[in-house]
Amino acid sequence: MADKPLILVTNDDGITAPGIRTLISVMNEIGDVVVVAPDSPQSAMGHAITINSTLQCHKIKIDDGPQIEYSCSGTPADCVKLGINEILQKKPDLCVSGINHGSNASINVIYSGTMSAAIEASIEGVPAIGFSLLDYSWKANFERIKDIAKKITIKALSEGIPSGTALNVNIPNLEKKEIKGIKVCNQANAYWIEKFDKRTNPQGREYYWLTGEFINNDKSTESDEWALKNGFVSVVPVKFDLTNYEVIDKIKSWNL
Amino acid sequence: MADKPLILVTNDDGITAPGIRTLISVMNEIGDVVVVAPDSPQSAMGHAITINSTLQCHKIKIDDGPQIEYSCSGTPADCVKLGINEILQKKPDLCVSGINHGSNASINVIYSGTMSAAIEASIEGVPAIGFSLLDYSWKANFERIKDIAKKITIKALSEGIPSGTALNVNIPNLEKKEIKGIKVCNQANAYWIEKFDKRTNPQGREYYWLTGEFINNDKSTESDEWALKNGFVSVVPVKFDLTNYEVIDKIKSWNL
Repeated sequence: MADKPLILVTNDDGITAPGIRTLISVMNEIGDVVVVAPDSPQSAMGHAITINSTLQCHKIKIDDGPQIEYSCSGTPADCVKLGINEILQKKPDLCVSGINHGSNASINVIYSGTMSAAIEASIEGVPAIGFSLLDYSWKANFERIKDIAKKITIKALSEGIPSGTALNVNIPNLEKKEIKGIKVCNQANAYWIEKFDKRTNPQGREYYWLTGEFINNDKSTESDEWALKNGFVSVVPVKFDLTNYEVIDKIKSWNL
Repeated sequence: MADKPLILVTNDDGITAPGIRTLISVMNEIGDVVVVAPDSPQSAMGHAITINSTLQCHKIKIDDGPQIEYSCSGTPADCVKLGINEILQKKPDLCVSGINHGSNASINVIYSGTMSAAIEASIEGVPAIGFSLLDYSWKANFERIKDIAKKITIKALSEGIPSGTALNVNIPNLEKKEIKGIKVCNQANAYWIEKFDKRTNPQGREYYWLTGEFINNDKSTESDEWALKNGFVSVVPVKFDLTNYEVIDKIKSWNL
C-alpha cells in the first residue's frame, strides 16, 4: 500500500464535529489519514496563528477508524503548520479541511477558519481543499454528500491542484438527487451588512453581539453564490497572492 | 471645516501602542479622526471576527488630541465593523490601520491583524490603508516616518483608492534620508518555514512555541520584499477577491 496518498485532515469546528468525522471516513477510503484538528470550535478565526502563547497537541483516539489523530489547542492554521512541520514525517499529498457546518462561499472565505487551513497548506506547498455544507446545524446530514467529497478529492489527486491554489468547495443543502452537478466558479462579490445587537449586562455595562445580513449584488452566473442557489456544488480556486494587479498601474500613476 | 475627511483609525497592537499613537497624530493633521482599536494586542489574528462571544467597546481618553477614541475588546476586523456600522454616524472617507510594529510585507499580509482591518474596511466600501514599520520594537522610532504616512494618505484621499482595494504600505527601518522613495509593488512570493520549539512544562506535559524562518525565493524587482531590501517604501494594492482566475479553465477541464 505504499502508493496510498498521505492525507492531512483538519477543520475549524473542532475534532469531534460531525463534519470532520464524515470527512475522515471519506479520506480513509482514499489514503492514509492523519488528523490534526482544533480541540475546540475555531469558527471565524480567519487566518489567525498563535504566536504569543503556547500550543498543546496530543494524540487522541475518537473512533475505530485507521486514521491517526491529534487534538491541538491552536487555530486551524496552527494545526496545519504543526501537522506539516512537526507531526508528519513527510509532506502530505493533500490537505483537506472541513466539512464545515455552514457556507464558506463568496466573502465568507475571508473569515473562514476552514479555508484558512486549506490556504495555509497551499502556502506550504501542499495541495488543499476546503469543504463546506450549507447547513449550520450540528446535526446536518453529511452522509449524503460523501460521494461528492470523494469524487472531488480523487480528481484533485489525479489531476493535481495548480500550485499556489486551494479549492473552496461549497455544497448546497439539498438531497443528493436534487444536486445538479459541480460548477467551477469565481468568488461572488457579496458582503455582510453588520448589525450590532446592543445589550446591557447585569452590572449595567453595554456589550454587543455581532449579527449581520448577507447581501449579494453579484448578478454573474459564474459566481459561487449563483451556483449554490441553482443547485450546484461550487468549486472556487483560491490563491494567497492578494495583489490587485489590475490597479497597480493606476496607483503608479499617483507618482508617490 | 465641513470638508475635512472623516478618518477611522485602528490597529492590531492595541490602542496604547506607540505605532497607533503616531498614526493618530498624523491623521489629526488631515481630517476628523475617530479611533476604534483593540484594548489589547491582536497580532497575527488574521481576519478573525468575534461571533461566539460578546464585544465590549467604550469611549476612552488617552491624550490631549482632538480625536474621539473607543477601546474595543474584539479583533481588528471587529473594530472596523463596529466603527463603520455602529459608532460612526456616517461612512468614513478613509480607514487607516497601524502603524504596525513589524513587517506585513509579502505573505505576512495573510496573518496580519493590521491588514485584516484595512481589508475589512475595503469590503465595507471604505478606502483603506495599512501602515507597517519594519521594526518590531515597542520603542521603534515612528516620528521619522510621519511624513511618509501623511504623503500617502493625502494622495490616496485626493486620487481615490480603486474600489475593492486596500493599500498595504511597509516602511523600511531606515533613517529618513536613507529612504530612496515609494514603490508600488506586488506581494512577494515568500513564505515561512515553521520550526516548533518543543518544551515540557513543570507537569511533564509537552507544549510548543511557534517560530519560523522567512524564506524569500522571489527574484522579481517588482516585489515588496525587493523594494524594502533596497531602501524603498513598498505599496501593494490588496484585494479580497481570492479567486485564482488564471486556473479556472484548468480546473474546468477536470470535468467534475
